[in-house]
Amino acid sequence: MTLKNGVLDPQGKAIGHALNGLGFGSVGEVRQGKVIDLDLNETDATKAKASLKDMCEKLLANTVIEKYEIEIR
Amino acid sequence: MTLKNGVLDPQGKAIGHALNGLGFGSVGEVRQGKVIDLDLNETDATKAKASLKDMCEKLLANTVIEKYEIEIR
Repeated sequence: MTLKNGVLDPQGKAIGHALNGLGFGSVGEVRQGKVIDLDLNETDATKAKASLKDMCEKLLANTVIEKYEIEIR
Repeated sequence: MTLKNGVLDPQGKAIGHALNGLGFGSVGEVRQGKVIDLDLNETDATKAKASLKDMCEKLLANTVIEKYEIEIR
């Protein structure tokens, strides 16, 4: 989950400034967000994805200001 | 970045319990971490990766308790 593009992200900005200050001049826009790793007891990838989407909508993400991505490994 | 495997993650545990409570019974172990998206002005993927590793070691990750993964898109 990261904040949507229009939403101000002061934490990301602070990280960007700190990196520039440390000499990483090639760093542009920075966005900070959350990652949630979870073990799912489900063998069907399509079902797993649907279930994860449901979790994001119901609990994990604040969809007013955040966007999310789902990745299955 | 997520906490290393041996490190207690109460936030992850809380998310796991909340998901179980919402009826997502197939959820097992949950770990919560951070994600940092950054635009890098660098065309060479190898150099970009080295530079990102450097940033993680120097500023972004607390390598005592956190592990990190780098992904280039």
